[in-house]
Amino acid sequence: MARFDFVVLGSGPAGRRAAIQAAKLGKSVLVVDDRSKVGGVSVHTGTIPSKTLRETALNLSGWRERGFYGRSYRAKGDIVSEDLSMRMARTCEYEVAVLEHQFARNGVKTMVGRGRFDGPGRIVVERREEGRNFEEVVEAGKVLIAVGTQPHRPAHIPFNDTNVFDSDSFIARPRLPRSLAVVGGGVIGVEYATIFSALDVPVTLIDPRARLLDFLDGEIVDNLVHLMRDNGMTLRLGGMVDKIRFAANGNPVCMLEDGRQVSAEVVLFTAGRSGATGSLGLDTVGLKVDRRGYLEVDRTTFQTSVAGIYAAGDVVGFPCLASVSMEQGRSAACHAFDAPYSTEGKSNPYGVYSVPELSAVGMSEEQVREADIAYECGVARFRETSRGHIMGMDYGVLKMICARDTRKVLGVHIIGEGASELIHIGQAVINLGGTVDYFVENSFNYPTLAEGYKIAALDVWNRLQAQAADVVELPVAAARPARPRSRRA
Amino acid sequence: MARFDFVVLGSGPAGRRAAIQAAKLGKSVLVVDDRSKVGGVSVHTGTIPSKTLRETALNLSGWRERGFYGRSYRAKGDIVSEDLSMRMARTCEYEVAVLEHQFARNGVKTMVGRGRFDGPGRIVVERREEGRNFEEVVEAGKVLIAVGTQPHRPAHIPFNDTNVFDSDSFIARPRLPRSLAVVGGGVIGVEYATIFSALDVPVTLIDPRARLLDFLDGEIVDNLVHLMRDNGMTLRLGGMVDKIRFAANGNPVCMLEDGRQVSAEVVLFTAGRSGATGSLGLDTVGLKVDRRGYLEVDRTTFQTSVAGIYAAGDVVGFPCLASVSMEQGRSAACHAFDAPYSTEGKSNPYGVYSVPELSAVGMSEEQVREADIAYECGVARFRETSRGHIMGMDYGVLKMICARDTRKVLGVHIIGEGASELIHIGQAVINLGGTVDYFVENSFNYPTLAEGYKIAALDVWNRLQAQAADVVELPVAAARPARPRSRRA
Repeated sequence: MARFDFVVLGSGPAGRRAAIQAAKLGKSVLVVDDRSKVGGVSVHTGTIPSKTLRETALNLSGWRERGFYGRSYRAKGDIVSEDLSMRMARTCEYEVAVLEHQFARNGVKTMVGRGRFDGPGRIVVERREEGRNFEEVVEAGKVLIAVGTQPHRPAHIPFNDTNVFDSDSFIARPRLPRSLAVVGGGVIGVEYATIFSALDVPVTLIDPRARLLDFLDGEIVDNLVHLMRDNGMTLRLGGMVDKIRFAANGNPVCMLEDGRQVSAEVVLFTAGRSGATGSLGLDTVGLKVDRRGYLEVDRTTFQTSVAGIYAAGDVVGFPCLASVSMEQGRSAACHAFDAPYSTEGKSNPYGVYSVPELSAVGMSEEQVREADIAYECGVARFRETSRGHIMGMDYGVLKMICARDTRKVLGVHIIGEGASELIHIGQAVINLGGTVDYFVENSFNYPTLAEGYKIAALDVWNRLQAQAADVVELPVAAARPARPRSRRA
Repeated sequence: MARFDFVVLGSGPAGRRAAIQAAKLGKSVLVVDDRSKVGGVSVHTGTIPSKTLRETALNLSGWRERGFYGRSYRAKGDIVSEDLSMRMARTCEYEVAVLEHQFARNGVKTMVGRGRFDGPGRIVVERREEGRNFEEVVEAGKVLIAVGTQPHRPAHIPFNDTNVFDSDSFIARPRLPRSLAVVGGGVIGVEYATIFSALDVPVTLIDPRARLLDFLDGEIVDNLVHLMRDNGMTLRLGGMVDKIRFAANGNPVCMLEDGRQVSAEVVLFTAGRSGATGSLGLDTVGLKVDRRGYLEVDRTTFQTSVAGIYAAGDVVGFPCLASVSMEQGRSAACHAFDAPYSTEGKSNPYGVYSVPELSAVGMSEEQVREADIAYECGVARFRETSRGHIMGMDYGVLKMICARDTRKVLGVHIIGEGASELIHIGQAVINLGGTVDYFVENSFNYPTLAEGYKIAALDVWNRLQAQAADVVELPVAAARPARPRSRRA
């Protein structure tokens, strides 16, 4: 029976990063994944395919040029479904090759099969080779559960993978429907809804909550909602989909509990995902999952309640971002093998690859208010930068939040082209303890969108100056509420 | 006779920023410019038009999609010269409007006319209104000379603005020639040569020096040269253009002093620019310029040798970047009116808007070696990032240089899509005193090109670790040279 210092269940971002880290620390490592190709959801049905689809859609639709050439501008006359699949297949192949190479170079072994616990330190892998099923047992020093998630498929939704899809089956065979209804206004729902809207497919987005993406800054989300509607998308918020029926022509009809109906050629149902933990034999080691299949861990070490068993990535829940999962995997491996590593106190960026992109780092205005920190906000519009104008950008906003007393940057929130790249400038300043003055005093390439940082910082800076000079102590009765009121009228 | 606290000659980036700064300090400000529209070279013949031309060329040629769809891919079948001019005109109009609005909002007065000194504190403006020429005299507390530059037009070159152009006349009427010879491998020459090459115009670039852009990191310039040739451009380096003759069909032929000849439908001659100082009456205040018309200033205060007279922007020479000119203007205004301001010790980014873009911050490898600092380099290729692959990028490099002892980041150099935006991440880390560990320890949005920072940093990090572990003290005779040898084989 083979023995490994570290057995990693799953080869997505968390598993991959943990495996490489442990190998670099000189440990013997086995990665078990039941897909025939490594990479996990990220490479096969999640991040990479959806971002490739997005890029293809933007290229083919000429989206980035519409500011100049008008809404009816198309770079390519007829967009066919093959255009969408071709690039996805090539990107996916490449990602798998890179990952296999990385594993090989670091001496990480891989095994195709479904792994499960059979008591502490014992992993059984259900394998299939040349038509034969068999089980292989390996002994594990430490184990990382990085199996990720699967789409949540509620029993009352008639998934048929023909015209009612979950996000995995939807991306497996991308096509351009005549109309699309997206159920679920989380990250996945918003990404697909906006991508297909950019391809001029009529889209309806349905969510039971009144607000989309409620973990992001409200003002930025307001901007997104405005742009969605402006591009012709229909939003049906505040109503749960009670059931889906089929019309005489076979098209699905979403029936909302409040009586509203949404008909479309295709329905994409994205009401969350659940941990792919069902067949892991967790009971044999005394581990429990919550009702959505997620595991609880210590958020610094990523160890579960059982010593030597770690969990990282989407299977531990929010934020379910590939970049964060990698850091979690690395933290877990370092803790497992006594290497110093800590990501504490560091602000991670979030990226939502909708059209346009959203990205954020640090605190939202809601969080700052909740924490009762005195603050000021500054805003820049991309069209206020020369580069934005050159690129014909009539949308795009950068919002900066700074503390009044320390002048430190608390958060940066961007919507617009390149947001997910630009956010790292704000991240560096936040994580290195910089203040609003950094942006005021340093020069930026001209013309760039990054100048938005300077414009927003000057906006903050002016508010800090003006208010410091103008404040007059009034008798209590006449005074305004103590809560800082810093927003533009 | 009107009196102003501050008279600014020129309304380009340096003049504009200085004027606004002085106005914000409560001073009365007059901006004098002989163009009927404010903005200077930057808005009218330099930065803005050339960057707009670049963006238009990339959009229309489908350049960004060629990685996926092949070299023959075009987003739009027929690119005509009107496509090039239309966007330029719109962007330029917009920039002028923004600037006029900014002046108006801050109470900055403007006057159209040619300004000259008539003794200290006295500016004469040659004006023309309703067909009538007249002179207006204003009294000035302090003066900023921000008149910029004009193309250097050597007497032996037969400029005709029909098929032999300087960079100002070239951009005034952009057209798509059948072939183009660009003389001068500085920033302007390289930008136009690569833009027209991206439009599939056969381009020859001629420069007397053996290397292009020698103020940038050599490895990055090597990359650019490779890409230029790979895209079909011809380089004729190490040979001066002795004269230009015309062939029987009227086409210009560049005759190099070494006997080589380069024929093309259009010649763009970009052999540097010279300070537009000829008619400023500098002798009346005792100021002198060098042989290229540039003024010498204190590089911190931007004051000339005459107290109260400042100069900033391109007229003081290198680096001639709009972003830096703005900071210079601000420094001058702050020094003139006793406001604290210093940009000392801050690394400014450089941006070259060629195809692809180049950008840099901090020291080049050549400068680090010159300063005899022990260092390591790390390199990332954009195609190693998932986003690069999704975007079909087969080129693009990020190079990071770090000090061995302090681990501080000394320089970042990028060639590739978005370089001028991405560089600001490195700039923040450099200017806030961060080390290579910043990039190793912080998480980046996935997928982004910014992940290139992490890849390059890990490359540096591994070299620092490996070499620290492996170094063995040898007897002096057997020891290797003391100079750090950190480059990839």
